[in-house]
Amino acid sequence: MKVAFIGLGNMGSGIAQCILKGGFDLTVWNRTAAKMNPLVANGAKGAASIQEAVANADVIITSLMDDKSILDMLQAEDGILANMKPGAVHVCVTTISPRCADELTDLHKKHGSYYVSAPVVGRPDAAASGQLTSFLAGDPQAIAIATPVCSAYSKQVTAISEKPSIANSMKLCVNYNVISVIEMMCETYTLAEKCGVPLEHMRDFYQQSLFAHPALKMYAEKLRSRDFTGRGGFVMKAGLKDVTLMLSTAEAVGVPLEMGKIAERKLKAGIAAGMEETDWSAIYEITRQEAGLS
Amino acid sequence: MKVAFIGLGNMGSGIAQCILKGGFDLTVWNRTAAKMNPLVANGAKGAASIQEAVANADVIITSLMDDKSILDMLQAEDGILANMKPGAVHVCVTTISPRCADELTDLHKKHGSYYVSAPVVGRPDAAASGQLTSFLAGDPQAIAIATPVCSAYSKQVTAISEKPSIANSMKLCVNYNVISVIEMMCETYTLAEKCGVPLEHMRDFYQQSLFAHPALKMYAEKLRSRDFTGRGGFVMKAGLKDVTLMLSTAEAVGVPLEMGKIAERKLKAGIAAGMEETDWSAIYEITRQEAGLS
Repeated sequence: MKVAFIGLGNMGSGIAQCILKGGFDLTVWNRTAAKMNPLVANGAKGAASIQEAVANADVIITSLMDDKSILDMLQAEDGILANMKPGAVHVCVTTISPRCADELTDLHKKHGSYYVSAPVVGRPDAAASGQLTSFLAGDPQAIAIATPVCSAYSKQVTAISEKPSIANSMKLCVNYNVISVIEMMCETYTLAEKCGVPLEHMRDFYQQSLFAHPALKMYAEKLRSRDFTGRGGFVMKAGLKDVTLMLSTAEAVGVPLEMGKIAERKLKAGIAAGMEETDWSAIYEITRQEAGLS
Repeated sequence: MKVAFIGLGNMGSGIAQCILKGGFDLTVWNRTAAKMNPLVANGAKGAASIQEAVANADVIITSLMDDKSILDMLQAEDGILANMKPGAVHVCVTTISPRCADELTDLHKKHGSYYVSAPVVGRPDAAASGQLTSFLAGDPQAIAIATPVCSAYSKQVTAISEKPSIANSMKLCVNYNVISVIEMMCETYTLAEKCGVPLEHMRDFYQQSLFAHPALKMYAEKLRSRDFTGRGGFVMKAGLKDVTLMLSTAEAVGVPLEMGKIAERKLKAGIAAGMEETDWSAIYEITRQEAGLS
């Protein structure tokens, strides 16, 4: 099976390496061509254009920034849709809006190709080690074609609906819980500190009693130590994009997300204070400031 | 060692049975005398008065409702302080305010007795099976005396401070996380439902990926099935008492608890709608109503 991979950022480069290790015939393309080198060194073909990358592909995976970048690249004259085979499957791993997924579905239907939403849960280190969780939604036959490729970078692949946007809604729900847990820990650690409770006891409570997932265990220590650097981070500007998607999706269906508004406000305050490239859990610093801690 | 136990409610009766099974010489007292019968049948002494219960006790455990009930019972003419031995240890397992713990500490110091805050984490079924988690704070010698008794009803006993109120602050932090997680699931399930995401996938995500603790796993299913009945419940009116304590404690130290305000509002709405004896996780019904779901 011929696979094309477009977008070699923090997540994309790890995912593409896993697909390569999985034995697929892989062609990669990235706007900044130098990012293709590590993959080409491992046996991938480096394409000179999007056209060259997608022309013969059975499965095209995009790992881009947001709604706009995926829609632009799909519809451009020298873009994906104009150059891909009818019948081929486009798999999008980015966290995009459910509305954008609906739009992509329509565009592919008109072109005679397939669109599968396949958002991933996990940070860049999980992508690099093939330990992501993937939620797939779309035409069942297209999902069947995409599944072996997605399995190459995922510890778990779950098909959840025939309607692509459902996977995107699911992903927003998942991330809503992660940022809510972070917000919860921000407030709790701050309250504990001001009451004189040793934070180690709270951290132990989280890690030993409340949380099983490695990512949440990691956040429990990240906040306690106030260390918001390090590999595999999810930066504030990407976090704000996700929270904005959660809030607009919720508004569209009429659900008040009150905790989401709290997180949004703190992410904006953090970015305004120059922390846009800091891990999104650094909203703890805003929480501490608001409680008079320095 | 002679142990007196006062307050045989849902939590207290289970705790007292564990102490009895632990082989301690136990005397019990309860305002409604009939609640003593199951313990007396198993070998406890049933006291006719508080005086009789506490006069010879080395350790006195109280499991009462709130700040007021414990302060009243301690200071009454025929109450605990007037009748207990100097040097005896008073262990309070109730979730009370840190300020009340400070007051109890002073009262015991003047009397020549010891006060240990020993709030418990766990629902009535955990109390009955000796699986509570206990946070102990107070004079180290008094904690040493109390620990074997607390171990009889706890899977884990952690001494966290020499200042009793720190254990109460810790307990409020713990419960703040439980109600925050419930609020988080209320909002997420409601968003998922309105977006068309099958709730089973969210429940599986919680139970398999996000949460390890049995109580949180239980809530993930409780909300999905909207079944707020059942044994071992933590009712809304008790939940509101705890949330009120969290908010007043946080206000006293200058920490904004924005998620706590959300939970408080929904608990009050639930109680106003006649759900005061319903599990506190039934704030989900308020969340659903506010999103136009019936």
